[in-house]
Amino acid sequence: MNRKAKLSLVGCGPGALDLITLRGVEAIKQADVLLYDALIHPDLLHHNHGAIKCYVGKRGGKPSCSQNDIMGYIDRYTAQGLHVCRLKGGDISVFARAAEEVLWAHKLGIDVEMIPGISIYTAIAAEHQLPLTHRGISDSFWAVTGHTADGLLSKDMELAARSNATVMVYMGMGHLTEIISLFLKHQSPELPVAIIQNGTLPEEKCVLGQLSTIEGLVGEQGTSSPALIVIGWAAAKAMAKNSKLNIHQPENIAWVA
Amino acid sequence: MNRKAKLSLVGCGPGALDLITLRGVEAIKQADVLLYDALIHPDLLHHNHGAIKCYVGKRGGKPSCSQNDIMGYIDRYTAQGLHVCRLKGGDISVFARAAEEVLWAHKLGIDVEMIPGISIYTAIAAEHQLPLTHRGISDSFWAVTGHTADGLLSKDMELAARSNATVMVYMGMGHLTEIISLFLKHQSPELPVAIIQNGTLPEEKCVLGQLSTIEGLVGEQGTSSPALIVIGWAAAKAMAKNSKLNIHQPENIAWVA
Repeated sequence: MNRKAKLSLVGCGPGALDLITLRGVEAIKQADVLLYDALIHPDLLHHNHGAIKCYVGKRGGKPSCSQNDIMGYIDRYTAQGLHVCRLKGGDISVFARAAEEVLWAHKLGIDVEMIPGISIYTAIAAEHQLPLTHRGISDSFWAVTGHTADGLLSKDMELAARSNATVMVYMGMGHLTEIISLFLKHQSPELPVAIIQNGTLPEEKCVLGQLSTIEGLVGEQGTSSPALIVIGWAAAKAMAKNSKLNIHQPENIAWVA
Repeated sequence: MNRKAKLSLVGCGPGALDLITLRGVEAIKQADVLLYDALIHPDLLHHNHGAIKCYVGKRGGKPSCSQNDIMGYIDRYTAQGLHVCRLKGGDISVFARAAEEVLWAHKLGIDVEMIPGISIYTAIAAEHQLPLTHRGISDSFWAVTGHTADGLLSKDMELAARSNATVMVYMGMGHLTEIISLFLKHQSPELPVAIIQNGTLPEEKCVLGQLSTIEGLVGEQGTSSPALIVIGWAAAKAMAKNSKLNIHQPENIAWVA
């Protein structure tokens, strides 16, 4: 076979069918093999009816696929000179373990390309009209995993708690109490916190509170993992929509309704 | 006129024509008016030949458009019941001053939607195969502006310098000396630094160095603003491609070639 083997890692966005890039769709159309995880919209596979399709999701009710199994698929199909397209939910550079697959492609001596995607945090920010930065209020935003490779809270969380960044915590629900108590050491108990489960999907569940109230609200409403935790004054905009709350708003956040 | 006025804020990605989302393209097609800035790909306007098109860029050789002028356009066209689509480079939630336009739309009483886009940092990360996070190496990434509303370095930069985050600094070239000296207080002089001007465009210019060498390299190569500064071990991957450098690599970054 004279086709050139290739691996494309494609960030497919947060779940909505139309939040993938044109380049991502084109890669799907050109592929011979589609390896897809549990987080992508299933209709994305309809862009290419002829491709071989393998489910390699790591969660959901289905049997789980190990990282080694995924490497095996990449090896097997690229050895046949095929173009393999690996479809991942969200972006590919953020908490996606892309490095392992890139390295694997390098070891196999095949071309690899990465196609960026819309990350869940920015999709949620857009949906809720929460800018992640705002002049004079928040100079930065910080995306941090709440659950490191060793199962502990990242040491960076203590620095994040001291910053004025909008902090987005991935996979942090298991450490929520610890995270909140770190922030309470450095920030006002009124600091807004939003927790969004299934962000941007029809079954989205959003809990809005403050450092002092969020754990109680999570308990009442039964919010569970996986969910994104957003901490910072930027969240005040969504907060203000919740009429039960009457939070303190810094005077210079003029845009908070 | 019985059409309903609406404002869509669309993140158009880092500059490549195909790094916009399907939803973004659809918004362009549906719009009556396109307000576009200097950073978008000009061919995006070809998705809608019938729309009124207004250049509202704030830089380049052309006359600059103030934020007030932009608000004026939004007011004028939505008052006519038109759907205004505001096209911005990159994403809309990050360093995009979107909040001001969202608030303005709320004041005018019109519907507003935000459509997320590919941010320049994640496009660059994909192009250079630089994961922004990596298990056991970097638990987080931090996007921070180097130039706050008052023209000073963000106070968050000192916290960023102490973290193990991949730090992406926007608009930081004017404060480069200050940033590097902050990081040198807390990190190894061998910590990789990449500076990317015109990222993802054909005229891209990329300088790779370490904390101890980057300023000299920038001087030699004449790198200028606007550019993105990337600091962290994740940059080691791109660093390793530069044969002139022989940087220290932590043993557990197995994927660094």
